[in-house]
Amino acid sequence: MHYEDIANQVISRLFVELEASGRHVHVTEAQAQALFGHRLTPKRELSQPGQYLANERVTVIGPKGRFENVAVLGPERKAGQVELSLTDTRTLGIDAPVRMSGDVANTPGAILQGNMGTVALREGVIVAQRHIHITPQDAKTMGVADQQTVRLQAYTQRPLIFDDVVVRVSPQFQTRVHLDYDEANACGFQKGDLGRILS
Amino acid sequence: MHYEDIANQVISRLFVELEASGRHVHVTEAQAQALFGHRLTPKRELSQPGQYLANERVTVIGPKGRFENVAVLGPERKAGQVELSLTDTRTLGIDAPVRMSGDVANTPGAILQGNMGTVALREGVIVAQRHIHITPQDAKTMGVADQQTVRLQAYTQRPLIFDDVVVRVSPQFQTRVHLDYDEANACGFQKGDLGRILS
Repeated sequence: MHYEDIANQVISRLFVELEASGRHVHVTEAQAQALFGHRLTPKRELSQPGQYLANERVTVIGPKGRFENVAVLGPERKAGQVELSLTDTRTLGIDAPVRMSGDVANTPGAILQGNMGTVALREGVIVAQRHIHITPQDAKTMGVADQQTVRLQAYTQRPLIFDDVVVRVSPQFQTRVHLDYDEANACGFQKGDLGRILS
Repeated sequence: MHYEDIANQVISRLFVELEASGRHVHVTEAQAQALFGHRLTPKRELSQPGQYLANERVTVIGPKGRFENVAVLGPERKAGQVELSLTDTRTLGIDAPVRMSGDVANTPGAILQGNMGTVALREGVIVAQRHIHITPQDAKTMGVADQQTVRLQAYTQRPLIFDDVVVRVSPQFQTRVHLDYDEANACGFQKGDLGRILS
């Protein structure tokens, strides 16, 4: 092993790579059929194993505005979900709460428009709570447990410390911090930037 | 003095009120004449004494997009300036740096359009560095000096600690933290929220 590889190994145990998630949508199989006339088709793999960006895109419509050409992430889920930044929620006029993905009880809905049809989501619009996907091994090294919230120092152009970052541990994960674009811009995030769990 | 007033006095010495600044423009007297045919006229006072929101509005145009109906702040300055969020810079296609207000050397320009004419700013487009306006008395109480950078805990819905917050001390100021809307949304800011200087 070269020195550089060893250095990379050490760094990867101390730091977590940051990623910014743009606005995106999750759909059920039935919703994919209604929107596109078929199931989702993968265009590109995402950092979390098994997750992909679909070729299919939707328009998301709220009372005050719309976003066209919004990314749909696969595979299909058991419930539709729209993940926006707080900035986005104002553009659409949808007063969505900050929630962890999947926690959509009593959230507002939105209209989704695909190339083949329209789906009215009765709930599922959220602002994603910032979170860390982490493997059991990395969780052990970094001393954190599933569902814990931690503080995270972002080593970025506009450095800051995020409070209330939710830890999610799974052997299915690749270790990554997920921010939305408000958070990414607030810290001046650039691709490859790292963070460190403080507590 | 009532107990509540005393409590408010104590709190005001420990905490600083947060404010979010939307995108806005500063212009010179000559630019105001060119854009509107007259000098700026005050519509509403801002928190910083002497500063006001003007009745006049401009369109800000970049290579990739435009924002209409952008706020102009008075009084007029010695140089024109456009303050955007990083999100805004992407919409306009202007690669503006994070800078303190007034520090516009080697920054990109933009086109400003008023109801009477157009001005091409050759420089002056910035993303405002987060900062604290603070009175000399509050600076003494909180142990900070002009031009120092501090960390600031935001007690907000999505709490976080901002690094690199620049302190500006002046007897002309009212004590306030100024964030842009990326930062405000990243911390879930709501009007009246407070912050505390940590170091």
